[in-house]
Amino acid sequence: MDDRIHEHAETLVDWSARIESGDDVVIAVADGAHDLAVATARVLGERGANLISLYQSNEITRAYLQGHDGAFDRDPEYQRALYENADSVLFLGGGRNVAATADVPGDRMNAYSRARQAIREAQMDTDWVSTVHPTRSLAQQAGMSYPAYETFVYDAVLRDWEELADEMATLKHILDDGSEVTIVGEDTHLTMSIESRTAVNSAASVAYDSHNLPSGEVFTAPASPDGYVTFDVPMTIRGKRVRDVRLEFEDGVVVDYSASINEDVIGEVLDTDGGAKRLGELGIGMNRGIGQPTDSILFDEKMAETIHLAVGRAYDACLPDGEDGNDSAVHVDLITQMDAGSRFEVDGEVIQRDGQFRWEDGFQP
Amino acid sequence: MDDRIHEHAETLVDWSARIESGDDVVIAVADGAHDLAVATARVLGERGANLISLYQSNEITRAYLQGHDGAFDRDPEYQRALYENADSVLFLGGGRNVAATADVPGDRMNAYSRARQAIREAQMDTDWVSTVHPTRSLAQQAGMSYPAYETFVYDAVLRDWEELADEMATLKHILDDGSEVTIVGEDTHLTMSIESRTAVNSAASVAYDSHNLPSGEVFTAPASPDGYVTFDVPMTIRGKRVRDVRLEFEDGVVVDYSASINEDVIGEVLDTDGGAKRLGELGIGMNRGIGQPTDSILFDEKMAETIHLAVGRAYDACLPDGEDGNDSAVHVDLITQMDAGSRFEVDGEVIQRDGQFRWEDGFQP
Repeated sequence: MDDRIHEHAETLVDWSARIESGDDVVIAVADGAHDLAVATARVLGERGANLISLYQSNEITRAYLQGHDGAFDRDPEYQRALYENADSVLFLGGGRNVAATADVPGDRMNAYSRARQAIREAQMDTDWVSTVHPTRSLAQQAGMSYPAYETFVYDAVLRDWEELADEMATLKHILDDGSEVTIVGEDTHLTMSIESRTAVNSAASVAYDSHNLPSGEVFTAPASPDGYVTFDVPMTIRGKRVRDVRLEFEDGVVVDYSASINEDVIGEVLDTDGGAKRLGELGIGMNRGIGQPTDSILFDEKMAETIHLAVGRAYDACLPDGEDGNDSAVHVDLITQMDAGSRFEVDGEVIQRDGQFRWEDGFQP
Repeated sequence: MDDRIHEHAETLVDWSARIESGDDVVIAVADGAHDLAVATARVLGERGANLISLYQSNEITRAYLQGHDGAFDRDPEYQRALYENADSVLFLGGGRNVAATADVPGDRMNAYSRARQAIREAQMDTDWVSTVHPTRSLAQQAGMSYPAYETFVYDAVLRDWEELADEMATLKHILDDGSEVTIVGEDTHLTMSIESRTAVNSAASVAYDSHNLPSGEVFTAPASPDGYVTFDVPMTIRGKRVRDVRLEFEDGVVVDYSASINEDVIGEVLDTDGGAKRLGELGIGMNRGIGQPTDSILFDEKMAETIHLAVGRAYDACLPDGEDGNDSAVHVDLITQMDAGSRFEVDGEVIQRDGQFRWEDGFQP
């Protein structure tokens, strides 16, 4: 087995999930993630953890949903009982076809998702971590050869996380102390308030309240955006490719939008509810192991020299105790490159210019 | 997808497990049984059952056990909680390598198995069913091409179970009313008591207390065997092929044994404990869909025109209330062909001769 798969498993178990002897662990294995599951089982055995493996196959989900009439049992207790008694759930993504559920009616998928709300909450109450094993399907989605995609994934995952966590702490403190953020770039000039908000140092470990491997972003919950922003990183939203999404804000609300491809998807998202026209997240990508977008949010939003904004729901971790953030049924990330000609300011001070932070070599004040 | 896979899934869900709307179902999917899992998920959806899928990969088990130091947690509660709250567990066997755990130390495997005793009991307290999807690995073990093996499996599984259950009921009643059984064949002449014992009509359905698909046997718990018996169906026991096992009984206990290949395995089995030298089961194979041995006990022991005996533990279902049957840590089946020249008698009456039951065409009284 490729040594990198074993290193991935060790990073997942030790750095990300902080598994200890006697921990009750669930691994949820996508149908292309067998090799990572085997490597993870080995490490879990070495650590003396307990293990049960779930089979997370989109083809099984599709068949089940195609057969079902849509009147799903709310909260099947036997499944919730598993998670409520578990310490960690490790989601090993990496399927064989990203379009495996493309022909399931949307309302049935939504009904299934609603019925599983309590199960999801029980999962999220554990020390859960989400990662992916490189598969040919994901390589194809990224437009890459399989060996090149494997290298891409391991460059992103096998970081010096301690060092990156230290660097991200610098930015977190700037954001925690700051009041107003400005992003300037091509067809982009946007200001937002971050007054009294707390940034999360998302260092790919439950010890940092971070549940993605890879991670490598600092994010907070902004308010009162004003101005316009163009998202030049291509993405797939609700199964459709979108490009060059442009949002215009006045008094904290989207007042105009456009896109060069599939503009209607953006319209649908913004029309979901009142909160969908407001911002829920400002995230700054800082993982220099991720050098290109691959049409996967797990990687794209952590890419160095990018900033992402999400319309919709805000994360509680960023809000003062007792304060409710923006609420919405959606949370849709959109990403912009912070390359030549761009800058990121906090309270009028330039923190990043042309993609370089002020603590990096080559930063131009 | 091959129609036969869908029919297999329907037989499993409807005939075997008797799944109804709202049932909480676990499917445990071997790493070669994906297609059967997809077909089963479809049928479970159609029936309105709830579904969680486990990944039962021998390669994951091997890696976990290789990593572990052997001091396993007894009874991990989070796993037991899943089964205790479930209605049915469907084991979809069919791996990719029957020797996948061959290099796991035996004592570690045994320690793991002991630690999971309570989990196993919780599984057995559900309406569980064990079946297999045909894989290339199992075809190889059977010495068959893959298409021929697929045909073999579906011939065994896709029976008219109702009709077979009726036929088996005839034999069950003969055994229930009988006192003494005699088996005569080549180098075989054995008598046993079945006084006050109850036979199980194993018709591949939980409605018949039968948990294998395919099934198709009638079995009971014999006592006081006397004579000798030769088992001419080749088998693999503890990873070793054995052939032509011959046992000699006096006063209910094995007093002599031999085999033409790997005789020492039989010696090991018989030396396990006191109960290992006594009989735990007499089973009569009645599935005419199974025409040849394939080195898999799930199929071989149900083959028509065979009788099997197990040394070791007896099944409670065959015993009068309050009576303990033969007790042992082992239950090892051995199979003999009932072909030309053989006969099976109950209380001196010939029930089967030359492989034909007395209610079948061609029976010679």
